[in-house]
Amino acid sequence: MSATADEGLTDLLVDVVRRAEANVAAGGGPFAATVVRGGDVVSVGVNRVTRDLDPTAHAEVVAIREACRAVEDFSLAGCVLLSSCEPCPMCLASALWARLDRVVYAADRDDAARAGFDDREFYDLFERPRTQWSVPVVQQQLPEATVPFAAWTAHDGRRAY
Amino acid sequence: MSATADEGLTDLLVDVVRRAEANVAAGGGPFAATVVRGGDVVSVGVNRVTRDLDPTAHAEVVAIREACRAVEDFSLAGCVLLSSCEPCPMCLASALWARLDRVVYAADRDDAARAGFDDREFYDLFERPRTQWSVPVVQQQLPEATVPFAAWTAHDGRRAY
Repeated sequence: MSATADEGLTDLLVDVVRRAEANVAAGGGPFAATVVRGGDVVSVGVNRVTRDLDPTAHAEVVAIREACRAVEDFSLAGCVLLSSCEPCPMCLASALWARLDRVVYAADRDDAARAGFDDREFYDLFERPRTQWSVPVVQQQLPEATVPFAAWTAHDGRRAY
Repeated sequence: MSATADEGLTDLLVDVVRRAEANVAAGGGPFAATVVRGGDVVSVGVNRVTRDLDPTAHAEVVAIREACRAVEDFSLAGCVLLSSCEPCPMCLASALWARLDRVVYAADRDDAARAGFDDREFYDLFERPRTQWSVPVVQQQLPEATVPFAAWTAHDGRRAY
């Protein structure tokens, strides 16, 4: 990517930070994100967790979903995600599933932690064995557990993602 | 939780696995999930990535969103998430943000990998330094990066989540 294109992304990232600030007065969390392709904005998203009663409505997820609607594809290959703050594990994995080319963020998980958000705590949790988690995450063995995957691999019309 | 209650959850988990299998014929991925409170089903979700053109529409995320709509709250504290397969990092972090009490799954990331899904690959990626990732995830320092958080902490009407 050329220096000029990167300068364009910097301007867009500054816009995203301004949107994050404005979202606080609008009743949301202090986060915003945008999906960009070739310097053009495909979508913007702000944190809507408390307004939509949706714990997954982080700015990045909102922007990714909106971008997919805009381009009518579940893949955002060729696009870049700009976020006002380092994406949490949910948002970062969303970016991976969306096949985004790159993720650029302004503030980081430590800034978010100082403002009372759990992004850093969840990153720390991911690095610890689940046996140490306060939230149990456990497998229950079932004889039929892999039947759905057998159905999938046998299904000629399956659409991989 | 009593043995009887856990037996109830096993039956519900078997139902979830059946839904995951049925979702393949319906044109979706081989995954399903349900949110349960006190043995009662609050919501069910199936993978809708390709049908909804939404890379975040994994079964667990769909079930969490639907459960929040049902209970009219962005917190699912007191609820359990049952999934046909080990939640990927996106879904597991979604469960943490939703404040679910517990996550129980049938198949695991290795089963999913054998069927061609990237859940295990993304878990492996999370364990490696980002400098080794093929997808760049980078911070761009901005003077105004923490302005949204300052607005947040100064905002009396903020609603934490």
